[in-house]
Formats: sequence, structure tokens, C-alpha cells
Amino acid sequence: MLTIMNFEKAKQELLEWLAIPSISTLSERNTDTRLAAEYLHQKLTSLGFSSSILETAGHPVVFAEHSKAGESTPTVLLYGHYDVQPTDPDDEWITQPFSPAIRDAAIYARGSTDDKGQVWAHVAALEHHLITNGTLPVNVKILIEGEEEIGSPNLKPFVLEQAKKLACDVVVISDGSMFAPSVPTLTTGLRGLCYLEVLVQGAKQDLHSGGYGGAVANPIQALAQIIQSLRNGNGEILIPGIYKDVRAVSAVELEGWKNLPFTETALMQSVGVTALPGEPGYSVLERLWARPTLEINGIWGGFQGEGQKTVLPAKAGAKISLRLVPDQQPDEIFTLVKNHIESLELPGVTVQVKKLHTGNPALVDATSPAAQAAIAALARAYPNTKPSFVRGGGTIPVVSVFSEVLNAPVLLVDYGLPDDGAHGPNERFTLECFEKGIETSIYLYEELAKLK
Amino acid sequence: MLTIMNFEKAKQELLEWLAIPSISTLSERNTDTRLAAEYLHQKLTSLGFSSSILETAGHPVVFAEHSKAGESTPTVLLYGHYDVQPTDPDDEWITQPFSPAIRDAAIYARGSTDDKGQVWAHVAALEHHLITNGTLPVNVKILIEGEEEIGSPNLKPFVLEQAKKLACDVVVISDGSMFAPSVPTLTTGLRGLCYLEVLVQGAKQDLHSGGYGGAVANPIQALAQIIQSLRNGNGEILIPGIYKDVRAVSAVELEGWKNLPFTETALMQSVGVTALPGEPGYSVLERLWARPTLEINGIWGGFQGEGQKTVLPAKAGAKISLRLVPDQQPDEIFTLVKNHIESLELPGVTVQVKKLHTGNPALVDATSPAAQAAIAALARAYPNTKPSFVRGGGTIPVVSVFSEVLNAPVLLVDYGLPDDGAHGPNERFTLECFEKGIETSIYLYEELAKLK
Repeated sequence: MLTIMNFEKAKQELLEWLAIPSISTLSERNTDTRLAAEYLHQKLTSLGFSSSILETAGHPVVFAEHSKAGESTPTVLLYGHYDVQPTDPDDEWITQPFSPAIRDAAIYARGSTDDKGQVWAHVAALEHHLITNGTLPVNVKILIEGEEEIGSPNLKPFVLEQAKKLACDVVVISDGSMFAPSVPTLTTGLRGLCYLEVLVQGAKQDLHSGGYGGAVANPIQALAQIIQSLRNGNGEILIPGIYKDVRAVSAVELEGWKNLPFTETALMQSVGVTALPGEPGYSVLERLWARPTLEINGIWGGFQGEGQKTVLPAKAGAKISLRLVPDQQPDEIFTLVKNHIESLELPGVTVQVKKLHTGNPALVDATSPAAQAAIAALARAYPNTKPSFVRGGGTIPVVSVFSEVLNAPVLLVDYGLPDDGAHGPNERFTLECFEKGIETSIYLYEELAKLK
Repeated sequence: MLTIMNFEKAKQELLEWLAIPSISTLSERNTDTRLAAEYLHQKLTSLGFSSSILETAGHPVVFAEHSKAGESTPTVLLYGHYDVQPTDPDDEWITQPFSPAIRDAAIYARGSTDDKGQVWAHVAALEHHLITNGTLPVNVKILIEGEEEIGSPNLKPFVLEQAKKLACDVVVISDGSMFAPSVPTLTTGLRGLCYLEVLVQGAKQDLHSGGYGGAVANPIQALAQIIQSLRNGNGEILIPGIYKDVRAVSAVELEGWKNLPFTETALMQSVGVTALPGEPGYSVLERLWARPTLEINGIWGGFQGEGQKTVLPAKAGAKISLRLVPDQQPDEIFTLVKNHIESLELPGVTVQVKKLHTGNPALVDATSPAAQAAIAALARAYPNTKPSFVRGGGTIPVVSVFSEVLNAPVLLVDYGLPDDGAHGPNERFTLECFEKGIETSIYLYEELAKLK
């Protein structure tokens, strides 16, 4: 294994970066979010990059460039994000989300795996090249945004506007997870997203459930009816037309998935459940990677406190999202969901359906030279294991933006693990993943140098 | 109309009492809750009552006695409660719940109508008798508890233990609402209650909805399925056996209800809805007073904050209550609900059903001399309107305790209004209701003196 000269330093810097609570969806964290951009900007500047913080309509973008490898050498654009998810449920964290802690050979902090830790693996790899060789094997552009966790609302306009500045031969993203520990994988597909909010209003204010129960409609009951009309207990989505654009998975891809080291028992154990209910006729991996799904991400209404309150609530609401697959269009899907909900008969309540954000599904060509370069880098980092192609169940909305606007292949080389707890309490990034991520990145920039 | 000498003073005292946040369900309010008991105890002592604060396993009881009317004069036991409901949703109060404010000829504060204001109407009536005559027309015992809003868990043991001390000829309770402004009513029936909590657990912790959506069960979805299995959109309860003990309403009682000044339009306007969905084949008043109903009082799970979070939550829960009618038994009903929920097929989640509290339904004999005395008092206070018999949709669990243990008739003489906002934001007690409540109470103690 390669010795990474600057590993301890990189780890200390990552801990400092993770301590900054850059939660993009909470406006009271705006100052912290900018601070996280500043931290990265300072680091890249110190490495000799020409770095700047560029304003958008929302959180700023860090853009940096190191183009001293010559015109005949390829240009790699690294994309990632410095913003993180909210931290609730707060009482379930063993150590505080923004007091990074190392235990059990892992770094625990919000953003450790998603995505600060993976971005820092690349930063450390680039620093390693600069320490070792005084230069980089390729020309490198770095674009790290602060709005990935809220759907990257300002990145597409930014990429469109700055297309020339961002011009590149290949885009590299590390913002997901490898299939399993020590199983090197290249992700060739991601699901899209359609995230919405449903608000139900009954009476103009909360009422006494004894005085009005039996006469006035209950918005929580109406919301339960809406939810049950969207999906059945098997996970099949009941909205008319929802499956019509779903592209079938090729037999070759399906065959490859069967050979992955996956068992339902291991998945059940890792999340602590005794059954994996889902759409009949599809394997768990197909359901996770190639089928659309609908989840209720949150629900609220009435009294949630200790004890009891005999209230007939005035309002209830839910956050609902669909994961989409090629060739589903998020905006069309939103219209289908909205029309379906609005067609339900719900006397005594009014219903509002709001679109919060969308992201396109994406597929990457596994046969392209760029993808083969990534496979070569993974093979060097993991000499005993043949790298595999997988898909991801999550969404990176900008993947389709890069491939469409920059006309460059997008490589999804993921360094996290599936049970790192991204978006949940006790998010972590193992020290092994961090170190292997740095090593893989070192090789990746070398392999990509051979592209032209 | 009678001139109440001490009206201004009584109003000032009520405002002071309302400023004490005696929320019995919140343990952090225990000191305030006791303070409200202290305040009443001091007042009754100053009126010449032999008053004491008696401990229970929970919040204390105020018990006071003024027995100078002689053995041949009846003894009246006044029951009420000094505890109040929680205040959420806090941001909907125009003035703070514990900063009592007078506007639009009403007192706005948590507890103003339920039940501090109505208790204080009796206290002021008794003070009026003492000022005017130096004595009371009957022997009076006063029992004001601090746990009514949490189901009076310690009152039944207290009444059983202190049955001799509480011995009386009639019990008087003012803890509900008259049918409409200036419509004098005696309440002859109350619904019972069965309040429970349902907790659903999926994975051991929150997961990323992209990484796991399609494979791991969603507890919010399971909760929606449970709720939909309990009740349909019409309000009909779907739990097998739930209606088997429901007693039919007599034709005479139904006829009386038809003559009440009630219109569906006025009810819809007062609460701000355009429909009153409910069990087919029953009028709104039947549904409110004589039919069991099931309400979801609260629901929670996953992300409830600003923006979006793509989480597949680990937990969800709901507060659910049923209003019951004679001859339904709350404990039997709980068993039916629990068995029904536990019989549902919900793969991948575990479900817990917890009983939070219960209260028996109650009926009062409208032909008894005590009820006729109350009607006489109402007729004197409202000389132009014939008093009516109504029922209440709410629950006062102790009513059945008093009638069973003390073997005395229970009079429900209510001074509040249906739209006072009990249990909701901006709870109020109109000054007219307060004044008429004092006047009616003055007459009531005089009429009850004729009983023996």
C-alpha cells in the first residue's frame, strides 16, 4: 500500500472542517455555511490553486484551478459539496454532530461521509502529488458547492453561465458509498428525486375533540387517507401513470448485480429489521437502484408532547418524496402526484401540494475510456478484488447538469460505506475509507492523465 | 337582573388565578400547579371555609367545607379543577396564555373557561351570599382537583377513601358549555374516553431515503395504514365489535334536540369549514352526543423542519382517542382497539399500543328533584328563555365516580360557550358568561336548599 505522507495533517484539517455546522437548509446557519466555504478556499489557495468564492443567489460556490500540466494533458473537474444535512434527531447522537470525534477507527460528525470527508480525500490526494512531485498529473478544476442538500437550486444556472470556465474532459464526484467495505465499485447510475410537501387544513383553529369530534373533519385522518392512496403496504406506488416511463435494466447489468456480495440477511442486520417489504417481482437491489419508490420523510399534526391532549387539530402536514429512475421526468411526476392528490374526495378539509425540489435520474456509460480509467485506479488501490459496477439509490441532481452542459463523462467514484449513517444520527466516515479514498484519488488523477 | 356586589373583585381574583400556569401534564409545571391550589385555598379560607390542601399520589386536591346551615339543610358538593391544558400551538395565541387579557368583553387565558372561570363563578356566588346574608343557604363542600386534564388518575382512590368526608345530597359541576349564548341548559349526558398512543418502530435509526427507500419499511407509512384501518372518511369506526354496547337515544330526547337553536351552517361558520362529514344516518347532534367517535389527536415522525430532508425515519407515533357513549366500557374498548391494531399485517415494523387514560360515559336523570332545582335556578337567571336538556360530547371522568361512590345525583350546570376555545389557542370566558354564571350559582344554592 502507498504511504500517504500527509495523512495525519489531512485528518486534523478534516476534523476542523467538520466542526463548522454548514447546514444549508437552516437560514440561521448561513454564517456557518459560508465559513465552511472559506475554510476550503484557504486550503486550496495554500496548495497553490487559483481559488475564489463565487456568489450565487444562495450559498456561495468554491471554485479553484491548478492548470500547470500542459494543454496536451486532460482537465479533470472535481465536484463535491461543503453543506450538510440537519442533525435531528439530536438526542440520538452519541457525540455532538459538530464536535467531530474519533472512535472505533472512524470519524463521527455530521458531514463526515456526506460529503466533507470524501471531498477532503481528494484534497489530500492532490496535496500528496504536490508534495511528492511538485506538480499534478492532470489539470484540475475544483467546484465545491453549498446547496447540494437542498437540491442545488443555483448550481445549474451557475454551470450554464460559467460553462467555459468549467470546461473539462471528465467530471469526478465522490459523494456516495462503495458497495461494501473493501469492495471497490464504480457507480453507473443514480436515481432522481421529486420532493414535495402536503399541507391539510381543517377547522380554522384547534378544537376540543369532545366538543367537535364526530362533526368536524380531522386533517390528520385526511392526511393518512392521502398517504394510503399514494402507496400500498408492499411499496407499490398507486398513482396512475407513475410507472409508464420506467426503463428496464439490461440483462447484463442484472447479472452483474447478482454476483455482488449482497445478502438480505446482512442488510436486515445492519439496519435492525426482520423483513424487507417491497415491490413484488423485483430483487432488493433492483428495488433500490432501478425502481421508483415513494417515501414519507416526515409527518406532523396536533399534539406531540408528553401525556395527552384531547384536541381535534386544525392542521397536519407531510414531507413526501419519490426516487425516480430513467426515463422518468421529475416535473411530470410532480404533476401526476399533485393531480392525484387533488382528485381525492376529502370533505371538510383543504389540501395544498407544494413542490420543494427535483433532481433528474442519471446513467453513466461504463464502457467509456474515463470509466475504464476509474476502474484501473480502483484495481491499483484494491489489488486483490475486481472492481464492480453498481448503481446508487440516492440522487445527485447535478450529475445530469454536468453531462448535458459540459458534455463530459461523469465518474462516480464513491469512498463512503452504505451504513455510514448519512442523513441520520451518528454519521461517520471510517479512517480506512478516508485513507483508501486518498490512495484511490492519487491513482485516479494518474490514470486520467492517460486519457488524451 | 341581580346586582352582584363583588363582581369587580371576583374578576380581578380570577385574572390572578389564571396567570398561574397550572398545566398538569407537564412535570416542569408542578410547582405552578401547586401554586394554583394554594391560591384557591387562601381564598376559601378568607371566606370562612375550613379549607385544606390534601396530598394525592399526583397533584393535590383542595377540599373546603362551610357547614353552618344546619343538619336539616342539604349539603352540596361543588367539584371543579384548577389544572389546565397545555398551550400549543403557542404561536397562534393573540395574547399570551398566562397573561390574562380582557378584550371584546371576554377574558382570554388558558383555563379561562376550562375550568378556572367556572369554578370562580361559584366562589363569587358563595361570597355574594356571605356578604349579603352573613351565611350560606346550604351546607357546602368544595372539592377542586388538579388532574382533570390528565384523566383524574388519583381522584377515584381519593373519593373512595374520603367518602365519609365528601358525603352530600347533590354534586354540582360547571366544567362544560351551555348550548349557545343566552340559551340556559342542563347537561344530562357526557361521553366517555379511551385515549391511547401508538408507537411504530422500523429500522434501528433514521436512514437515507435514497439508500434504503424500496427495501426498508417506513414507519410513517405503517402508521397511516393503521389509522386508515381504524376509521373511514365518513367517521365510521371500523374496529370489529366497537358499536355493540352503544345504547340508543330515547325518542323523547331526540325530539328535544330537534328543537334546540342549532344549524349546521352556524357550526360550519363558527369553526371555518365548508362541510361536516360524519357517520351516515345520524344528525350532527347525535354524532356529537350519542355516537362513539375516533380522533387522531396528534401525529409525528421523521423530518418536520423548514425545507427538505431525505430521510427514511426509524420511528413514528400518534395519539388516538375514542369518545364513548353508554354502555361502552373504556377498558373493553381499549382491548378491542389494541387487538385490532396488533392483528394488522405490517412487515418490517414493530408496533406498541399504550393506554394513556380512560373515563366512563355518564347519564343524569333529568326528572330528579335535584335536576328540577337546577332548572328552576336557570329559569330565574334567564327569565325569558325556557331551559333545555342537552348532552355534552366531552368527558368528565369523575361524574360516574361521584354518582357511584357518593350515591348522589350529579348536576352539570355549564356556564361556558361552545366556541370558547377550550383546549385550543385563545381560550376565553366571556364576561357575560362569568356574570350570568355567578347569578345562576347564587340561585342554584338557594333552590337546592329546598331539596330536603
